[in-house]
Amino acid sequence: MNDHTHSTSKGVVNAGAVDTGTVDSSAVRTWLVGLQRQIVNALEAEDGSRFREDPWQRESVAKSEQSKQSEPVEKPALTGGGGLTCILEGGALLERGGIGFSNVSGTRLPPSATAARPQLVGRHWEAMGVSLVLHPRNPYIPTVHLNVRFFVAQPVEGSGEEPIWWFGGGMDLTPYYGFEEDAAHFHRTCADALKPFGADTYPRFKAWCDDYFFLKHRGEPRGIGGVFFDDLAEPDFATARRGHEYGERERSWQALRRGRYVEFNLVWDRGTLFGLQSGGRTESILMSMPPGVQWAYDHHPEPGSPEALLLSHYLVPRKWV
Amino acid sequence: MNDHTHSTSKGVVNAGAVDTGTVDSSAVRTWLVGLQRQIVNALEAEDGSRFREDPWQRESVAKSEQSKQSEPVEKPALTGGGGLTCILEGGALLERGGIGFSNVSGTRLPPSATAARPQLVGRHWEAMGVSLVLHPRNPYIPTVHLNVRFFVAQPVEGSGEEPIWWFGGGMDLTPYYGFEEDAAHFHRTCADALKPFGADTYPRFKAWCDDYFFLKHRGEPRGIGGVFFDDLAEPDFATARRGHEYGERERSWQALRRGRYVEFNLVWDRGTLFGLQSGGRTESILMSMPPGVQWAYDHHPEPGSPEALLLSHYLVPRKWV
Repeated sequence: MNDHTHSTSKGVVNAGAVDTGTVDSSAVRTWLVGLQRQIVNALEAEDGSRFREDPWQRESVAKSEQSKQSEPVEKPALTGGGGLTCILEGGALLERGGIGFSNVSGTRLPPSATAARPQLVGRHWEAMGVSLVLHPRNPYIPTVHLNVRFFVAQPVEGSGEEPIWWFGGGMDLTPYYGFEEDAAHFHRTCADALKPFGADTYPRFKAWCDDYFFLKHRGEPRGIGGVFFDDLAEPDFATARRGHEYGERERSWQALRRGRYVEFNLVWDRGTLFGLQSGGRTESILMSMPPGVQWAYDHHPEPGSPEALLLSHYLVPRKWV
Repeated sequence: MNDHTHSTSKGVVNAGAVDTGTVDSSAVRTWLVGLQRQIVNALEAEDGSRFREDPWQRESVAKSEQSKQSEPVEKPALTGGGGLTCILEGGALLERGGIGFSNVSGTRLPPSATAARPQLVGRHWEAMGVSLVLHPRNPYIPTVHLNVRFFVAQPVEGSGEEPIWWFGGGMDLTPYYGFEEDAAHFHRTCADALKPFGADTYPRFKAWCDDYFFLKHRGEPRGIGGVFFDDLAEPDFATARRGHEYGERERSWQALRRGRYVEFNLVWDRGTLFGLQSGGRTESILMSMPPGVQWAYDHHPEPGSPEALLLSHYLVPRKWV
């Protein structure tokens, strides 16, 4: 047993830390559903608009089997499950924001999962989680990403093996304009939350986050990082910058940087690729996409501008606390 | 020797058809550079604006080696080369359009290339090609994609083996609003161009194109397909629809559909993934990205609308000629 793995059902864990033994899936589910509700309520109060709530069930037949086109998506990776996607578009604070809960299971894992963990091959598995991406309208407010997930792989019947399970999660910020005090405050909050789990937990999880949210094809971090975390801090990401005035210039920069967000999520993000490869629900997976995005050839902000400062000062791995 | 492979240095070939024997790389290069020039000239005359021409050389040190971040990009996949990226943004006809020539070589192929062809492991290789993506401003004009590429893998010294080489190429259309006569005309032109290579060539290359340009995670084709082709037809894709009036409604639909284009290119396109994995030049690879893109949750056009017709009638594999 690993100290970081299941001190409580809401304990958090490096996704690399794996545990075996009994585990109460339904208690985890109840906690996750409550977490989603709590965040939806808090954001509705902030924004003044209501989320659209879209419950979904996984179809029993994979899309690829209905179509004769192309090579099939890995099947039958998923055998059942469903979720609740909560989405807000066109809000005063949130131009597009989604919080999804999902709980799916299957008889066989896609290659993206078993490549790193061959011991999972052949196991029946269950995954559940809450995932959040908020794209604020105001370019001075960062995009926020957060997720908590729980995974359990049951042993092959009669093998006498134990279930393998773990929690994973992360939280990070992607600013379009940087503010020293906001970055420090965010990382301080993360560090404080992780203190009970040992002095090395925050630096270790921060480094892992810096490594993960990195666009290899651009040699560039996605944002200012964050951590893999314990418990949810209040979503105060918007308070300080909400009244900050902006115009076309800032919106245009935001749209270009949102392009990087798209590139990361579609090219490198393991959660997205796992979902798309395993025949997950596309609209729920891609609720992370920003609302309005631009690409321009070889764009470089004017030297000395606030846009250039984002790249030179904020989008570099940095010790914030 | 395969009849479809090297009847001439500008002959075209199914990328699956592989040939061995001597080959004149420099003649292929000359032809490709001329092809790019010819298309740039034709499009400048159509658009009334000039392309920006950006010659580039591959840096000898991979990005990943300059940075301590993250796992390294496969290295040293590329050892040299360069290209010429021609890009036009904000034109009257083309909101964003690029035509790239590149010629790169390396000592080791990335896994995306050797997975399907294990006989290439360990070989020194050279790849060159011209790639074109045109995103017109007018939503009634389709996005056009075209590429021709040439690949040669040299034998390991002293092995006595022959070089392995092939041509590949393709051309396809992605309309935002469908026109029966345009689709039929486009496919007729493709079929006529391929007639000299046998009666089964067009249907075979069309089917392959339909299969390839398919968004598995949406169960949806990217466009109306096309073929893997022989010689370049004049770029008349815009002539018929250039004066077609449009407003916010059509621009908004175009932006949503461009999101699908992004999803295909970043999640499924082998050329893009090969480029990004092998440390290729990101700005040249991603010149295929559309200029303005939108994502909206679970968007469905009104039944009976022209937008709904695109999905039900045009974005289904269909016999156009």
